[in-house]
Amino acid sequence: MNNWSLVLKNLNFPYDIIKLDRGDTILFDKVSLVYIGLDGAVSISKRYLSNRLVTFCFINLNNIIFSSKNNFNYYLEAKAFSESHLMIISTEDFLQYKKKYVDIFILEIESLRIKLEQMELFASLLYHKSLKNRFLNFLLIMCKNFGIVYPFGITISINISHLDISNIIGSSRIAVTRLINQLKKKLIMIFKQKITIYNPVYLTYCLTSDKYFLSI
Amino acid sequence: MNNWSLVLKNLNFPYDIIKLDRGDTILFDKVSLVYIGLDGAVSISKRYLSNRLVTFCFINLNNIIFSSKNNFNYYLEAKAFSESHLMIISTEDFLQYKKKYVDIFILEIESLRIKLEQMELFASLLYHKSLKNRFLNFLLIMCKNFGIVYPFGITISINISHLDISNIIGSSRIAVTRLINQLKKKLIMIFKQKITIYNPVYLTYCLTSDKYFLSI
Repeated sequence: MNNWSLVLKNLNFPYDIIKLDRGDTILFDKVSLVYIGLDGAVSISKRYLSNRLVTFCFINLNNIIFSSKNNFNYYLEAKAFSESHLMIISTEDFLQYKKKYVDIFILEIESLRIKLEQMELFASLLYHKSLKNRFLNFLLIMCKNFGIVYPFGITISINISHLDISNIIGSSRIAVTRLINQLKKKLIMIFKQKITIYNPVYLTYCLTSDKYFLSI
Repeated sequence: MNNWSLVLKNLNFPYDIIKLDRGDTILFDKVSLVYIGLDGAVSISKRYLSNRLVTFCFINLNNIIFSSKNNFNYYLEAKAFSESHLMIISTEDFLQYKKKYVDIFILEIESLRIKLEQMELFASLLYHKSLKNRFLNFLLIMCKNFGIVYPFGITISINISHLDISNIIGSSRIAVTRLINQLKKKLIMIFKQKITIYNPVYLTYCLTSDKYFLSI
């Protein structure tokens, strides 16, 4: 059982759980709430007033938490890439219980650390200016978060559409499709809409030495 | 007095303070330590084995904390942009005292939140692929962190070299110099190596509507 549910249940803490199906999108409105990922794969993005979308982390692991704030130039958007569950609690309750129970502190710190790690991964993706390198970095993040290791490579266990990929790496759907077709010959395989990376070490190598990659 | 120093002093917690002068760089080696920014402006970057440098936050405000981990493909690098002080404590001590004193938990959570906010700012910078937009976003981050408001605009209170800017936005020094010269006419002014942005709202507008900016 998930740490958060376990601790909150023991403390008699009031919470809700919402279920998201693959493809579901929710907006975090201005009500102040704390969201905790229990399972599944949910991306968290900022949607700016200009309609630009910047994905900055995945709530994949248990225990990631954040609360919605009053932001003026963007709102937060969550999208589920597989069946997922989010725990929802009110910020008010949260602050009240935190004063009483040190267990909540420990979980909160752990959750913030996980979120920081996720955000670091996404920042390293966005550092690249070229679509190719962003996409390769994206594949590595997906391997790390959702990869299943097989003898012939690592398979990303969730389905993610070309459009979703293009939103995350800041490109167009058509460019992503073209790139995938190009990579399909040597670096990746797609079977039942799931991507398998033959050799993640080679991928990392491509990323760190642009020259080599260009010769593919 | 800084919250961290105050609390740690009261608890008789053993800590060191190091002073960094402008331009000083320190590497975080494999020893496990906790660093807390007390004042000044220090950037934190990842230096990858390929020598690529990715800056992911500024320790500018009080209270930002992180501990060095064993990372295989990068090490952390801190660079001071003004005279700065960092508090250093051992992770072992930290974990031990954390068990006893809830004050440390509260500070740690606050610090992690500040760090998350900083990282979000840098991720939004890197989302842009074009040098121009990365630079404009960088100016906005600097305004937010180190800006002093005057009637005629916002002055960034720290000196930051073109080379440093180019490292942060992932470009070359020459390209940054060229861009600054171009912007100097209409958007910014430089006096005693400090940048003043005439109108940050206009800058934000440029960033959200690429078309408009191109006409400058």
